[in-house]
Amino acid sequence: MKAALLLSGSGVYDGSEIHEAVLSLLALQEEGFTVQPCAPDIDQYHVINHTTGTEQTEKRNVFFESARIARGNIKKLEEIRVGDFNALVMPGGFGAAKNLTTWAFQGPEATIVPEVKSLILDFLKAKKPILAMCISPVVVALALKDSGISANLTVGTTEEKTPYDIPAIGQGMASLGAQVSMKRVNEFLFDEKNKIITTPCYMQDAQIMEIRNGILQAVRKLKQLVV
Amino acid sequence: MKAALLLSGSGVYDGSEIHEAVLSLLALQEEGFTVQPCAPDIDQYHVINHTTGTEQTEKRNVFFESARIARGNIKKLEEIRVGDFNALVMPGGFGAAKNLTTWAFQGPEATIVPEVKSLILDFLKAKKPILAMCISPVVVALALKDSGISANLTVGTTEEKTPYDIPAIGQGMASLGAQVSMKRVNEFLFDEKNKIITTPCYMQDAQIMEIRNGILQAVRKLKQLVV
Repeated sequence: MKAALLLSGSGVYDGSEIHEAVLSLLALQEEGFTVQPCAPDIDQYHVINHTTGTEQTEKRNVFFESARIARGNIKKLEEIRVGDFNALVMPGGFGAAKNLTTWAFQGPEATIVPEVKSLILDFLKAKKPILAMCISPVVVALALKDSGISANLTVGTTEEKTPYDIPAIGQGMASLGAQVSMKRVNEFLFDEKNKIITTPCYMQDAQIMEIRNGILQAVRKLKQLVV
Repeated sequence: MKAALLLSGSGVYDGSEIHEAVLSLLALQEEGFTVQPCAPDIDQYHVINHTTGTEQTEKRNVFFESARIARGNIKKLEEIRVGDFNALVMPGGFGAAKNLTTWAFQGPEATIVPEVKSLILDFLKAKKPILAMCISPVVVALALKDSGISANLTVGTTEEKTPYDIPAIGQGMASLGAQVSMKRVNEFLFDEKNKIITTPCYMQDAQIMEIRNGILQAVRKLKQLVV
C-alpha cells in the first residue's frame, strides 16, 4: 500500500500544519502504508512569523519548505502519478488555503493550483481514496467545482471550541456543490460513494493527543478502503 | 508535571528534527506533562535546502523557526526558569550541533550558547531530569565540560545502520569527560546519578515508527523520575 502525502509548506500559518503532517506519516506507516511526500514547486503566498502572526518580507518555496517535514524524501507534485499510489492524504495548515488554493483570501471564489486539482480528480476517477484533514477539504471542494461530483465533507464543528468560522467555511464549500456536515475532532466523515474521508484536526481548538487519535482513526478507515 | 522542550529551529539539517520534536510533544502530553517549547532568540548558523543539502543565502532566526513546530506557543530561552519545570527535553536535529552549539564544525572544541549551558546545569543542580535525543547529548556533554560531572550518554550504535560516525562522536564526548555507551533506536541509556536519559532516534537510519517508540519509552522513564 502506497500513499501520496500532499504538503503545502512547513508551519501552520503559511504551510502544512506540522503536527498533522508528522502524525500522518506516523499513522500511515503504523497501518502499513509506504508514504511518498510531495508538494508543488511554487512560491509560498507569503511567510508568517509564527510568534506574532505578522507577514515577513522574505520569499520561500512550498517544495523546499515541505522537504523539511519529509526529511528530504519528497517529490515534486508533477512527478506524482495516480497509478503509483493507493491513496492520497492531505494534512491541513494555512498552506492548503494560501498556497494550494487562495481560499484564505477569496473563499469559494478561490483559485486552485492546476496540478493539485488534476491530482485530486485523478484519484477520484481511479476510485482511489482521499483523506483530507483540517482545512484541506476546501481544496477538495475547489477541485470538484463544476465536476458534477457532490462530495460529503467536514471542516469541523461549532459544538467544540474552534478559532475558525466553521459555518462560513461550510457555506462556501456548499456554494461549490459540496454537502457539508459537522464533525468533532475525534470523528471523521466518510463519503462512501466518492471514497473521501475528512476529519477536523486543528480546525478545533484541540490538543496534540486528539489530533493523533483523529488521524489514526481516519487512516485506519483509509486502510479498509485500500486493502 | 511540566516539561521545557528546547528547540533549535525547524528542519533536520539546520534546526530541530521535526519528527522528534512533534513526537516529543505527543508522548509528553500522553504521559501527563504540560509542555512549554522554548528556543534561544539567535540567528541560525545557516539555512539548508532540505532537498539538495546545499546552503542558502537567506538568514533565519532559531526562535521564529522553532515557533513553527510549537504553533506559536513558544518562549524565549531567557524566560525559562528551572523552578517552573520538572524536566528538560531536547530533541535532536543539526540545530543542536549548529545553533545551540558548534559541534557540527568543531566537535569537542565547539562552543555552546551560554543560556543553553546554564539551563542544562540548572536542571542538573536542581536534580531535575533531562531527556536528550539523537545528537543533543553532545549539547549536554559540552555543558558539563569542566563541571566535574561525568555523565553517561549515548548517541547511537554501530550495530544498526547509521549515516553518522557514531564512534567519532562518542570519542569527542569522552574527551569532554562523558562516559559513552552504544544504544539502539529502541533503547535508551539511563544515567541514574545525574538523572539523564539519552536515546538515539534518527542517529540511526530508522523509520518514524521506531522514533515514536524510542521517544515514548524514554518519556515514560522520564515520568518515573518526576512522579
